[in-house]
Amino acid sequence: MRIVDWAGDDEGGPAVVLLDQRALPGATEHLYLRTVDELIEAIRSLAVRGAPSLGITGAFGVALAASLHGTATPVAVAAVRSAAERIAVARPTAVPLGLGVARALAALGDGPAAVLAQARAVAAEAARVNAAATGRAADLAQELCADRPLRALTVCNTGPLATGDGGTALGAVLRLHERGALAEVLACETRPLLQGARLTVWELAAAGAPHRLCVDSAGPAAIAAGLVDAVFVGADRIAANGDVANKIGTYMLACAAARSGIPFVVVAPEETIDPHTPTGADIVVEQRGAEEVREHGGTLLTLPGTPVYNPAFDVTPFDLVTAIVTEERAWGPGSSPAPSTAGPRTALAPH
Amino acid sequence: MRIVDWAGDDEGGPAVVLLDQRALPGATEHLYLRTVDELIEAIRSLAVRGAPSLGITGAFGVALAASLHGTATPVAVAAVRSAAERIAVARPTAVPLGLGVARALAALGDGPAAVLAQARAVAAEAARVNAAATGRAADLAQELCADRPLRALTVCNTGPLATGDGGTALGAVLRLHERGALAEVLACETRPLLQGARLTVWELAAAGAPHRLCVDSAGPAAIAAGLVDAVFVGADRIAANGDVANKIGTYMLACAAARSGIPFVVVAPEETIDPHTPTGADIVVEQRGAEEVREHGGTLLTLPGTPVYNPAFDVTPFDLVTAIVTEERAWGPGSSPAPSTAGPRTALAPH
Repeated sequence: MRIVDWAGDDEGGPAVVLLDQRALPGATEHLYLRTVDELIEAIRSLAVRGAPSLGITGAFGVALAASLHGTATPVAVAAVRSAAERIAVARPTAVPLGLGVARALAALGDGPAAVLAQARAVAAEAARVNAAATGRAADLAQELCADRPLRALTVCNTGPLATGDGGTALGAVLRLHERGALAEVLACETRPLLQGARLTVWELAAAGAPHRLCVDSAGPAAIAAGLVDAVFVGADRIAANGDVANKIGTYMLACAAARSGIPFVVVAPEETIDPHTPTGADIVVEQRGAEEVREHGGTLLTLPGTPVYNPAFDVTPFDLVTAIVTEERAWGPGSSPAPSTAGPRTALAPH
Repeated sequence: MRIVDWAGDDEGGPAVVLLDQRALPGATEHLYLRTVDELIEAIRSLAVRGAPSLGITGAFGVALAASLHGTATPVAVAAVRSAAERIAVARPTAVPLGLGVARALAALGDGPAAVLAQARAVAAEAARVNAAATGRAADLAQELCADRPLRALTVCNTGPLATGDGGTALGAVLRLHERGALAEVLACETRPLLQGARLTVWELAAAGAPHRLCVDSAGPAAIAAGLVDAVFVGADRIAANGDVANKIGTYMLACAAARSGIPFVVVAPEETIDPHTPTGADIVVEQRGAEEVREHGGTLLTLPGTPVYNPAFDVTPFDLVTAIVTEERAWGPGSSPAPSTAGPRTALAPH
């Protein structure tokens, strides 16, 4: 299943090909994006979403711009750079989007083929990173929850659809399933756009992992009722102090997990930790349109014109997090005081 | 607007008339329930809902049974009693349903007209109780939040639709609005059945109270972001130790309110406190059908057949509650150790 890829030579000229996540699980449709405007619209409308997948899409988007404009003249190079800047800010909260764009752009001096090769390297690197992080997160969960199959809870979608090959938080859950260490996954539906109901359930069913779906507010209640052993979530941006911006609904799960004393595990690439964002208070939380909440499938759910508060993300303070697990380390409030982008990583005690 | 009432003589014979809350806000339709089976189905399918409104409906349901069967023979009386028992358990969590049924049934020996008079008395008593409780809750909120217009947050629907005249939690919010002490209401949509989006927004708009709608998981995030001064919720059953069963989503708001140090106020009739339920662990939480979560308006939201966890309520421990406000008192963890159904009530300190 191709999630984000470069279209082949036999697919009608330069294009980024995406699995349209808006149509899942009802239909499996691929989009061929042949202009930068189409690509930006696909990002904004969540045809592709999930921070790591956005990074890969951003890199391929720069490759598309380089392929369309070429890089032979200063005017062409300027056009590619302008396109790259627009792609990088198509959604404001996810760190990997801007990083994927920047990495592809770094190869611009070597021509369109080099930019495309760099985009492919971004995708390959994501797969490597995900494999390392999910393995570490699954190890940690098994240690923290002793020797029993785990009842996991998650929100939004953090499997391969969201991240490229391997997944992050859902990837860790699927690793537990591969190990025979998963009893059940409770998937929060994730209003307003239902990424949990549409995408996570689809990926869990495909993997044969036992699961149940619940409305978002039933997640904290399930934790309080003793039905959950550990919570696994992804991240769109992590501040330098460890505060985590992730899909709206993450914070309530962290509050409930802390009160019930169960592990709350964030699984994300190291690059999600932004040294330029000191704390959660500095994270820009994307506010999305009212129609996402007011309507479903074109049907009004409330009175027309009702004002809406629709933040796409919330911020979970680091003290509610058991560990942020990346490809390099498990970082918890009990371990090192601050992340470092250079030098040896400190592990979550006792890791 | 008639919400639950006895149909008049010119409306085609004995019937309970209900505003069909399933059709709101798109349509304002009344149901005429002429059999006990129709009435039970209306309760189960949430054409009428909200603990106090269920109490009124239960009482009118017994009046309907008495009117249909008469009370002249032992066989007829047995038939009314059997119908009453079925009505009382149509939904398991709400205390007032059973109480409303029992109160109407107490007049059975005096004939159908007496049962109907008793049902009308149940409705009138609910209005009196609501007026007292909402006034006290509004007073308390103004004291706790000093001299500024309040930003209130609520879940589900606890206005007149849910409670008969006056409302409970939403009634208190509307009292603040009448006093010019309300800045905004944030209404959680209340998946799966969207009572917040459909009913609370409808009641707030009708009252001209400023409001915004949000997905449920944005409620805790709004609290953490400093956008809420106080949370107001109703209750379906309150254990003797003060643990509160209310609509799924209440617990997550209580966790978030406690962490942010804002008041979490439960507004409910005194009768909601059940001396026969020692703690929240003893409360039976109704589990509802999977289709409520899997589908909306006949459209699948996930893969067909996906298993679902769908509790209608959750239980908020008393230590997360600032005050349970009834028609008689404001009862908080800092006040009397246990409720009493007789003797003087103790007030929440410093009340």
